[in-house]
Parts: sequence; C-alpha cells; structure tokens
Amino acid sequence: MISILYSKNKIINFVLVKYYIFFVKVSFFKYHGTGNDFIIIDNYNNNYNLGSINIKSLCDRNLGIGSDGLIFVVKSNFNDFKMIYYNSDGNLGSFCGNGARCAVSYSYNKFFYNKKCKFSSCDGDHIGIINGDSISLKMKDVYQINKTKLGWEINTGSPHLVIFKDEIDNLNISKLSNSIFDLKYPKKNININFVKIENNSVKIRTFERGVFSETLSCGTGSVAAALLSFYLGYIKNKKIEIFSIGGTLNVQFDNNNSNFSNIYLEGQTKFVF
Amino acid sequence: MISILYSKNKIINFVLVKYYIFFVKVSFFKYHGTGNDFIIIDNYNNNYNLGSINIKSLCDRNLGIGSDGLIFVVKSNFNDFKMIYYNSDGNLGSFCGNGARCAVSYSYNKFFYNKKCKFSSCDGDHIGIINGDSISLKMKDVYQINKTKLGWEINTGSPHLVIFKDEIDNLNISKLSNSIFDLKYPKKNININFVKIENNSVKIRTFERGVFSETLSCGTGSVAAALLSFYLGYIKNKKIEIFSIGGTLNVQFDNNNSNFSNIYLEGQTKFVF
Repeated sequence: MISILYSKNKIINFVLVKYYIFFVKVSFFKYHGTGNDFIIIDNYNNNYNLGSINIKSLCDRNLGIGSDGLIFVVKSNFNDFKMIYYNSDGNLGSFCGNGARCAVSYSYNKFFYNKKCKFSSCDGDHIGIINGDSISLKMKDVYQINKTKLGWEINTGSPHLVIFKDEIDNLNISKLSNSIFDLKYPKKNININFVKIENNSVKIRTFERGVFSETLSCGTGSVAAALLSFYLGYIKNKKIEIFSIGGTLNVQFDNNNSNFSNIYLEGQTKFVF
Repeated sequence: MISILYSKNKIINFVLVKYYIFFVKVSFFKYHGTGNDFIIIDNYNNNYNLGSINIKSLCDRNLGIGSDGLIFVVKSNFNDFKMIYYNSDGNLGSFCGNGARCAVSYSYNKFFYNKKCKFSSCDGDHIGIINGDSISLKMKDVYQINKTKLGWEINTGSPHLVIFKDEIDNLNISKLSNSIFDLKYPKKNININFVKIENNSVKIRTFERGVFSETLSCGTGSVAAALLSFYLGYIKNKKIEIFSIGGTLNVQFDNNNSNFSNIYLEGQTKFVF
C-alpha cells in the first residue's frame, strides 16, 4: 500500500476565506489488466471522500500517480465488496471490465476468500474467479444490439460503438473517434472500438470516453467486439481470443439469437506497486 | 520511499535455460519539476544494478511507474552526491535541469545539508540552492551558439535546437519535430524547442529526445531559450521568465557577447509519492 499526500480544496462560503486547503494522506495500490491501469484505494471503512477534481489530479500521468481510472473498494452489505469506478477525468464511470478484474485481484489479496468472490458494481452484481494472475469475470447479460450508419451499438456494462475494419494497426483512432463524436455523439459518452477479424480471433483498438484517449486494452470493449463478431457470423466459436496493444483477453458466452448470457471475460492482471 | 517488485531478466548462455528470471525490490520516490516527472532511486550504497530494459519498463506510463526519466542518487567522493540520469527510453541521458532540481530536493530531504549543495553529474559539478519548494540550480557556462537553416543550436548540458515562432500553442510539435529529425538529425539526438516571445517573457514547448514526445517542461531547454532570447536582442533583461505547459521557470545569467556564465535555473519541485 502506497501513500500520497494530497491537497483537498474545500470551498467555504465565507467573506475572507474562500478556499480552505488541507492535506489528506491517501493510501493506494496500482494495478493493471493487460495495460489498462488503475489506482485502487481501499475505502472499506469510508476514510476517504475525494472529489472529482482530486480524482482527476490523482489520475494525471505527469503531476499525479497516473492511471486510466480510479477504483474505490468499499464495504457491501450483501457481497464480498463493492467497486466504485471513476474515469480519469474524475467523473463516475459505468462498468469497467479490466478495472473490475484488478479490483478482484486486489480484494483477493486482502480478504483471501476461496478464489471466488461476488461483488457489487454500478451495473449489478458480478462474480470474480481467481486463477493465479488470471482473473475471470462474469459480465452482465446482453440482450440488445443496434445497427447504426457508423457501426454497431452494444452495452456490455459500458456503452460501445464497434466498427469492423480490414486494417486497424495504422489508424489515427484519436482523429477518427473525435470525428465520430462530432457526427453522432456530441456528449462523447460512448467508447469507440475499431475491430479486425484475423484467423478466428479478434484484434481491437479502443478510444475510451472518460479517459478521452486510446487505452492499451478495454475489457467491456473486448466483450462487445467478441459478442458482435459471433453475432455477425465472423467467428463461429463461443470462446474468442481478443488481442489488444496491452495483451490478450478471452471472452466466452452462451448465445440464443441476440441474447448473450453467462458471459465471462478472462485475462491477466498485475500488481505494479 | 515506495517499493516495486521488479523482474530482472538475466540472460544465461546455457543450452536449456536461456533466461533466468528473478525479482528485485526497487525502492523509489516520484518527484516532478513543473510537470517534468522523474523516478528517483537512492542508490547511495550501490544496491541496484538495473539495465536499460528495466529502466525503460519502470518509466512506462501504463505498465510501470511512469515518468519522463529516472535518476540514481549515488555517493560522490568529492561532492554531496552524484546524479546519474536515464531517459525514459532506458538510455543514459545528458544533463537534465528539472531532474537535477528534483534530485537536489530529494537529497536535501535525505541529508538535511545547509540549503546549499554541490553535486556531480555527467556535464560536471553543479550547485543546488533550496528555498522552500523552489530549487535554484547553477548550470554549466555556455560559450557556443550555432545558427543553422532550421534554427539555433546550443548546448546547455543537453543539446538543443531552438526555433522562434509567432505562435506555438496550436503547433503539432510531434509531427514538426519528426520532420526536423528526418531533415537534419537522423540519430534524433537533439531536443527541439519551439519558442515565442511574449511581453518580455518566453513561452516554450519542447519535444525531448530520449522521451521522444513533448514534455510539460524542460529545464535545459528553458535555459537554451532564455540565453538565445537575450543573445538575439528579443529580451533585454538577464533574468527571464519561461512559461511552459507545466509551469514557470526563471533563468538568470551573466553575459559577455556569446559567453554566458553564472547561469541559474530556478523553479518549483514537488514530491508526488
């Protein structure tokens, strides 16, 4: 567990003293799942009450700790723990697959439960299974797929647009994603995935909302790409390898038409410091 | 002091075992000087022998700690300490002004000397003066300035090309710098600075060799920009404010034609964790 001294700006509506600045000591861990990296803060006892400005600063890669997102692991009344996820822009995020895998890895190191845990998140309950460095995660079922002029919309805990391409290695996905936001998503509140089918597996690059840049891997994006690759008949197996810049993830599922259940996302996580 | 468990790949020329992997525990601190950030490792007792692959991995912003460079603070027989600086690509660097200011700040916290220290580096000895969070650094004298078709070449501990522009905020300096490397510096072994004179002060953006991207601030680049701004008559003062994305630095100096001496670089440093 690592500590950082952090300034906490609290606005006091007082004539002479507008800002009262004090320091809190924040203890944290750093994990990554196939290159998607997270600050994990154990807030089991509700010691920390960080605002979005603080969280954005902690995630800053030059001035802070640096990460794609920040996760609070807190107490749950019904499950082993609850995960609260913030994007690196400091705002509450939707579900994060790689972040959740890291949170499972962390909580296993903390609680030493029997290699299987249940935890709550913003999109409901999930199961995490520990197999060494590899963490498998049960995702929420998917019932809805929308075709649009730009690609395929699907929600796998977070909203995704999936665009299939013959080539993705040399795409300027930052420029492309920004033009797609301008065209159809002015609130920029969707993740944009560029996907190539290659030898019965899937290559993916994701531009993430909230981070507002390309990440080395995206868990919910990988699930989105896998389900659509099967749905569109590009891949016949229900267990699919997903290759991203940061590493390989595996997605498996049951299927009935456009209904997907028992979806599992699996891959390595790593404790950094 | 923060620790990271780190794999150390040692190649053994043996028939069956080509790689022997073991773990070392590396303790480090993270500092930044106006957004230019560094891993500082206390290697006073020569405990660590990290190779360039390890250093590159530690500086990786997604998979490692993340920084613009890595500094070993080691024992000096003649001075308070010696600074050994590595770029984030894992290679030994030339002098780094902001890195040195951070090393002075760290070593003051370690040794508590009398707010003034002398330390060795690859370009000779330097003096560091502590004034709270602000660290002033005596730089090496500068005697040579070269005009080229592309801009001005000057060495302030590291080699710099300085290009004066009317506007620098919206430049794609990554693209510009790469085209300049292609034109004249195929070994890419120079830092490229884009500088604008504004109200008797200097605005700067620097593309750093070794990091191979824009940094939020560059100490030796700021000195280069200040000396040239005076040399070319753009600014009449011998004390100049330099504004970079990460913050403000001050450069002052004595001057006699193209000879600059008693050069001091001064600005804030911050302990991150």
